[in-house]
Amino acid sequence: MKKIGVGILGFGTVGAGVAGGLLRNRKVMAERLGVEVLLRRVADIDIVTDRGIGLEPALLTTDAMAVVNDPSVDIVVELIGGTGAAKKFVLAALDAGKAVVTANKKLLAECGEEIFGAAERNGVDIYFGASVGGGIPIIRVLREGLAGNEINSIHGILNGTCNYILTCMEQEGVAFDEALAAAQQSGYAEADPALDIDGGDTAHKAIILASLAYGFHVPVSKVAVEGIRNLAGMDVRYAAGLGYRIKLLAVIKRDGDMVEVGVHPTLVPHGHMLASVSHVFNAAMVNGDLSGDTLYYGRGAGREPTASTVIGDIGDIARNLLAAGRSRYQRGVCVANEGRLSMRPPEEVASRYYLRLMVLDKAGSLGVMTTILGRHGVSILAATQQETTGLPDDAGFVPVVMLTHPAQSASVDAALREIMAAEVLNEEPVKLRMI
Amino acid sequence: MKKIGVGILGFGTVGAGVAGGLLRNRKVMAERLGVEVLLRRVADIDIVTDRGIGLEPALLTTDAMAVVNDPSVDIVVELIGGTGAAKKFVLAALDAGKAVVTANKKLLAECGEEIFGAAERNGVDIYFGASVGGGIPIIRVLREGLAGNEINSIHGILNGTCNYILTCMEQEGVAFDEALAAAQQSGYAEADPALDIDGGDTAHKAIILASLAYGFHVPVSKVAVEGIRNLAGMDVRYAAGLGYRIKLLAVIKRDGDMVEVGVHPTLVPHGHMLASVSHVFNAAMVNGDLSGDTLYYGRGAGREPTASTVIGDIGDIARNLLAAGRSRYQRGVCVANEGRLSMRPPEEVASRYYLRLMVLDKAGSLGVMTTILGRHGVSILAATQQETTGLPDDAGFVPVVMLTHPAQSASVDAALREIMAAEVLNEEPVKLRMI
Repeated sequence: MKKIGVGILGFGTVGAGVAGGLLRNRKVMAERLGVEVLLRRVADIDIVTDRGIGLEPALLTTDAMAVVNDPSVDIVVELIGGTGAAKKFVLAALDAGKAVVTANKKLLAECGEEIFGAAERNGVDIYFGASVGGGIPIIRVLREGLAGNEINSIHGILNGTCNYILTCMEQEGVAFDEALAAAQQSGYAEADPALDIDGGDTAHKAIILASLAYGFHVPVSKVAVEGIRNLAGMDVRYAAGLGYRIKLLAVIKRDGDMVEVGVHPTLVPHGHMLASVSHVFNAAMVNGDLSGDTLYYGRGAGREPTASTVIGDIGDIARNLLAAGRSRYQRGVCVANEGRLSMRPPEEVASRYYLRLMVLDKAGSLGVMTTILGRHGVSILAATQQETTGLPDDAGFVPVVMLTHPAQSASVDAALREIMAAEVLNEEPVKLRMI
Repeated sequence: MKKIGVGILGFGTVGAGVAGGLLRNRKVMAERLGVEVLLRRVADIDIVTDRGIGLEPALLTTDAMAVVNDPSVDIVVELIGGTGAAKKFVLAALDAGKAVVTANKKLLAECGEEIFGAAERNGVDIYFGASVGGGIPIIRVLREGLAGNEINSIHGILNGTCNYILTCMEQEGVAFDEALAAAQQSGYAEADPALDIDGGDTAHKAIILASLAYGFHVPVSKVAVEGIRNLAGMDVRYAAGLGYRIKLLAVIKRDGDMVEVGVHPTLVPHGHMLASVSHVFNAAMVNGDLSGDTLYYGRGAGREPTASTVIGDIGDIARNLLAAGRSRYQRGVCVANEGRLSMRPPEEVASRYYLRLMVLDKAGSLGVMTTILGRHGVSILAATQQETTGLPDDAGFVPVVMLTHPAQSASVDAALREIMAAEVLNEEPVKLRMI
């Protein structure tokens, strides 16, 4: 049986998962693929700490370039992360004619054009299934399964830390800070959680999905990103009372030549499949013109789930090398729409909105608000005065929640500014998107 | 740009969907694949009826073999169904060195060894993504995405007709017959619904999934199949009251060298992702040793969703032909475990059970039942006397529902037989599996 050699750069959590998985499931993979996948080298700065997977010490090296240049290595797996050393080694591997597997969303979101260009120029495969959604095959689905579809939209829960925090806030009724602390204690959030909770991680993933779905380069700077850091417990509670859960969604949507790419805390109705995705689980709902709604669900991070996808990618490349001796993708990432599609400016995006207004308890306040909203073309689907648990009886204001019909973001913002100026509110209004 | 020719056999609902999709999304596919996919010929008995997709009449023929033998046809798409003409044409295409795409679950479940053998012998691709789950990429996921995993279990809602009926029974509170009539009226059930409601269709799909996951041939005769024809509305209601929905599940599970393959109406707790799958939607939950739980959801049937998957398969083969000029799968379906794994006999399967017993209203009935269950090693997790809506006050019996801890099917059956013999029940007990 033919052998395909794998070299791993980065022996951290995921690297150890991939190495362990390759060793453990070597036999079943060979049976399925018709080719033996062998782990040849592993590079890391730390080659002393035991990762508990029984790897032969002779396979370890601190010299990443030695792995890249090892003639017995056909596939280089980059699990270093970031855009420094990782980028250098990935480009070196591609230029050396090696296929590359990476889980590095930051690298692809920020330097995708350069990386994919190098893969295409060298005629080698680059697979990046684990860069979005961990154990969920969303990249594979967009590249292959739905290749015959025009993609109408993608809505994704792509950050497990945020979803854990949001689930905790809803189920335990706790505030954001407490939920974040719980996530940190459970190992689901970093000591510095900014990249997760401010939506940056989700934005990187949204960029990769949008590029794949629509074949054009999405600049990081043009993506509208809202995180969950300022989400109030009362909004989670009010939303629940109205039949919704709040999820941090990546939203990717095409309408003619305009593509919306954004990250927003969003109200999702209880009956919607995305509302059932709780704790650290991730999911992506893709609507294709032929397929209709489809959803892919699983663990979005973690050693084994991420390793599952990385190893699936390795298996695919092994099949390609065996069958053709070279890349199977003629286009790493299709860029046929470069210059033809453009990003829809965030203020032009239309959506239904949840508005929470702390309305001063004086005659005519509600009338003023609805008149202003109406003048800006924002029509109200439902308005309810919420319970005031936690507020003193004589607070002098009451929380009013309004759900709007679809309206342009800019119109809603203009109306809210005017309402603030009319001095009928006790504090800045809250505006959240609805799916 | 290189061209790949497609010939379609069967111009019914799905055939028209595939032809229409290939025509409509030709450009976006070429951009993604780097190869042009051209529809060359379509064969059907009826080439007169207009399918409304603007197909050039010159492409139509009544001669299926003319399509198979057309030198401009590289990929033959079989959408005839059944094991008669379809089998003949598929084998002829494979022997002619053509790649084949089929959505024919019956053909693969009943004649899989012969079909896959022919593909392997001829070194050509056979893709069958649409044979299970319509628009859901479950076949692709098992063949590729999860190739590095040992599969622990698969639980699937794989029949849209049954899921529509079950959703209707739960949401509208109607009996099976009425829900079936509604499904027929909406076009979701055939005039003769036996293949759907008795579980045969789900069984065919379970066999294909089990063969893929475990690499051995699953004989149709050894699959335990229960349908939903005899499901009582009151059990749907009682289950809902206890926090469960009843779903017709394909269950595939490995434990050592034994594999369980079955089809059963099953209680799924409300919080479980599969419980959220309603109406005609399908879903499959796959647990891999690395990936953990993953779920794939979408439309399980219908013209466009099925066409989406068939066209995805065509795209894959086009990539294979472009890169290597031949098949990429060295093993059509891996049969490495043939002879090593065996089917677990249904009576040996262990599960939690829902039992509904119509208990005669006489002293000591409950004691008799629990004693007998205990003697057979069946321990009770919860027992509740249900409301008797619809029963006369003096019926002389009351419905008692028990939920068991995991117990062997044979032990539960033996206990129920003994309880019947003890004359404490008014009618045969109902036994349903729980997930």
